Amino acid sequence: MCQLLAMNSKNPADIGFSFTGFRARGGLTDSHTDGFGIAYFEPTGLRLYCDDHSAVESPLAELVSQTKTRACNVIAHIRKSDDDLLCNAHPFTREIWGEAWVFSHNGKMTIQEALNGDPVPNDHHQNAACHHCPIGDTDSEFAFCYLLNQLKARFDSKPDEQTLFNFLKNQCRFLAQFGIFNCLFSNGDWLLSYANTLLFYVTRQAPFSKATLIDVDSQIDFAIMNDTDDVMTIIATTPLTQDESWQQLAVNECVIFKNGDIVYQDMPNPPEYLSIEEGLEIAQNA
Amino acid sequence: MCQLLAMNSKNPADIGFSFTGFRARGGLTDSHTDGFGIAYFEPTGLRLYCDDHSAVESPLAELVSQTKTRACNVIAHIRKSDDDLLCNAHPFTREIWGEAWVFSHNGKMTIQEALNGDPVPNDHHQNAACHHCPIGDTDSEFAFCYLLNQLKARFDSKPDEQTLFNFLKNQCRFLAQFGIFNCLFSNGDWLLSYANTLLFYVTRQAPFSKATLIDVDSQIDFAIMNDTDDVMTIIATTPLTQDESWQQLAVNECVIFKNGDIVYQDMPNPPEYLSIEEGLEIAQNA
Repeated sequence: MCQLLAMNSKNPADIGFSFTGFRARGGLTDSHTDGFGIAYFEPTGLRLYCDDHSAVESPLAELVSQTKTRACNVIAHIRKSDDDLLCNAHPFTREIWGEAWVFSHNGKMTIQEALNGDPVPNDHHQNAACHHCPIGDTDSEFAFCYLLNQLKARFDSKPDEQTLFNFLKNQCRFLAQFGIFNCLFSNGDWLLSYANTLLFYVTRQAPFSKATLIDVDSQIDFAIMNDTDDVMTIIATTPLTQDESWQQLAVNECVIFKNGDIVYQDMPNPPEYLSIEEGLEIAQNA
Repeated sequence: MCQLLAMNSKNPADIGFSFTGFRARGGLTDSHTDGFGIAYFEPTGLRLYCDDHSAVESPLAELVSQTKTRACNVIAHIRKSDDDLLCNAHPFTREIWGEAWVFSHNGKMTIQEALNGDPVPNDHHQNAACHHCPIGDTDSEFAFCYLLNQLKARFDSKPDEQTLFNFLKNQCRFLAQFGIFNCLFSNGDWLLSYANTLLFYVTRQAPFSKATLIDVDSQIDFAIMNDTDDVMTIIATTPLTQDESWQQLAVNECVIFKNGDIVYQDMPNPPEYLSIEEGLEIAQNA
């Protein structure tokens, strides 16, 4: 199992503080050491780093820590698996409709077996050469390709965001039937978060306060870092700070963040919430 | 205009020495300062770095210089253009047939205008949602997408290498009609080099000798670095060392390297060769 981190921000912002705590879980405070990656949607393009080294040891992760990269959407991933192949490191990216879309997954699924290793919608096999296929051998990249192939099969051009949300929400609920499926998904405009077991978020905005990391002895005063106009949401598998009020996404809740806030949201009624202990135990036994 | 660098090697090798000389052209000995990128096909996956900073100033390029990354195929690019957008930094990558393919281009083309901004073969518009589209606005990425769309339109699955070579050779000659088109192309197994103006290569194998960079005061003894079994070819826009015998590719020559050697080769008869001065002047006036 892995852990997820993301940021969606109104203005380009530096995820450095949150990343410092997250990175520690890649070998210091937790054992997600089988790879690391981060994708920044900068104002002029996608910056994507993937490494087969752990976040604690990776020279790329050290570069990330030392560089104040500002972006409106960021997705990061620390991996815990049976292998540390570079081709299996998240986040994954593909071009669709002339945009770079980025995906990370936390969980363990039997989707490859269920679909006989074919990430293509059943009734669209005539366009065999056109489909996205996984490069590595993870269930995660397979699910990403499946989602993109479903999108391409259903829509000739990029649909509006409400349509996209409804479609992806249903597709994520379909995928969640085959195991554990927490995911982050972005095209640089919006950030979709789907929780199947554990996913928390905190929105930081004026009046900004101080925050203290859980995994590393580090505190920050966001009032110094930000303008009153700034709004940003951090999403993580479990809370990264001890003195902010993190909100939990319900089991099978789907949310799209934009400009730092929730713009689309759908959860089962009544919502169900796992405790962190339950969620981590499910992951460990998966 | 830009400059290209590549390596094709029998065994995973470190391109560091050649990169040191190449990097200097990104701001020290030449002015290709509008971005930099490098793609390594490592044994377990693709490692791709792109930056909107110059190779001389980029922290990523510094990381590349300090890290002995070993790969059988490497493509690097330093950019000189009217913009330094991150989305326009080479090399570009797309997944095709479950493989990551990587492309870099040196030149200036009117291909977008010639094809009315549509990187899709004429008779395959029915599969509109399936096509690769450029994310940035370069002629280079447009040409890359055009090549991939042509491949997908022609072949349902990956063809054998002889067929692929013949097909890509003809496609490259088609593209070269629309301006200057030097390119490097790899799927990690083979490296295709197409010369339209300037492209040189040198093959290093036993008995290995010493080499001295042109752009930086640095010498190396390849006999110390390599085993007698090693064979590697370095390809560059212009020679990087002063004491090795670099071979020039002819105008519109197409070559595929594999395991450090040429395996497919086709050039016009009689071959034409530009002097470095002629080639650089054509590039400057393009």
